Amino acid sequence: MSKIAVIMDDMFEDVEYTRPAEAFREKGHQLVHVGLEKGKEVTGKKKTARVRIDESVTDASPADFDALFIPGGHSPDNLRAHDEAVSFAGKFLESGKPVFAICHAPQLLITARALKNRKVTGWKSIVQDIKNAGAEFVDKEVVVDGNLVSSRQPSDIPAFVRAALEKLQ
Amino acid sequence: MSKIAVIMDDMFEDVEYTRPAEAFREKGHQLVHVGLEKGKEVTGKKKTARVRIDESVTDASPADFDALFIPGGHSPDNLRAHDEAVSFAGKFLESGKPVFAICHAPQLLITARALKNRKVTGWKSIVQDIKNAGAEFVDKEVVVDGNLVSSRQPSDIPAFVRAALEKLQ
Repeated sequence: MSKIAVIMDDMFEDVEYTRPAEAFREKGHQLVHVGLEKGKEVTGKKKTARVRIDESVTDASPADFDALFIPGGHSPDNLRAHDEAVSFAGKFLESGKPVFAICHAPQLLITARALKNRKVTGWKSIVQDIKNAGAEFVDKEVVVDGNLVSSRQPSDIPAFVRAALEKLQ
Repeated sequence: MSKIAVIMDDMFEDVEYTRPAEAFREKGHQLVHVGLEKGKEVTGKKKTARVRIDESVTDASPADFDALFIPGGHSPDNLRAHDEAVSFAGKFLESGKPVFAICHAPQLLITARALKNRKVTGWKSIVQDIKNAGAEFVDKEVVVDGNLVSSRQPSDIPAFVRAALEKLQ
């Protein structure tokens, strides 16, 4: 049983949250939704998923969780305009605890300057940003580099979830 | 009288298109909307602006225009997943003709690997990406570096439009 922080804001890619979240819960893991404002309801791009933020990122610490999950869509771009969200994600990756990043999620880790020399994948629009951040971009459905698990897009979700679950206890 | 290519897709930041577009037309300049598909109607993030694409970027050449305008929002992120759009924007900047970029617009130029050693500004979420691309990020309402005019956000639009109009004949 792990306690997973899910960092998210409006305009997340609906299925990139809902499908991994369902799989994590089925295995008995607990999700805590971390965002810019406790109690705020955030909505997916496709408006098929709504999530209540359990905890403000300002009050959250990687020490309180076993893993971090960053759904994609435009949510990571919103989050990375806020220093506390950037710092939280960066510290999480540095802590050595598992970080699950899909689609646009690496944007948050780029702003945290946490991707140098890491192997990572992500949505095709951010490939050059990943390379410019000093990371090695790998064009595969899932890339596992130490504690960092990354995938490109919704069709990669089954492989993403399998690799993520292997990192959880 | 200049002929300005406006490259855009869905989810552009409405006012970052409408207000400069109105100012350019008032001065007698012609706008040609270039996008992924000729005839497609693209819609702004706030759904207050809709634009019909006049010309596919596949058929467009910088030689046909006097300047390029790239509105912000999520449109640049959509466009940069398409090689033809990336190539068009990159060639435009290299051509020496004026390029007007606001908010997230530098994303398209980053993917074109066209920003190295340029002075540029943009929306705060992409500051690290701009720096990682080898550009100098300048936190001002408008930054003019040779043929590249850039601004950060909607509140910068008056300064952005003034600087852009100075580049047009």
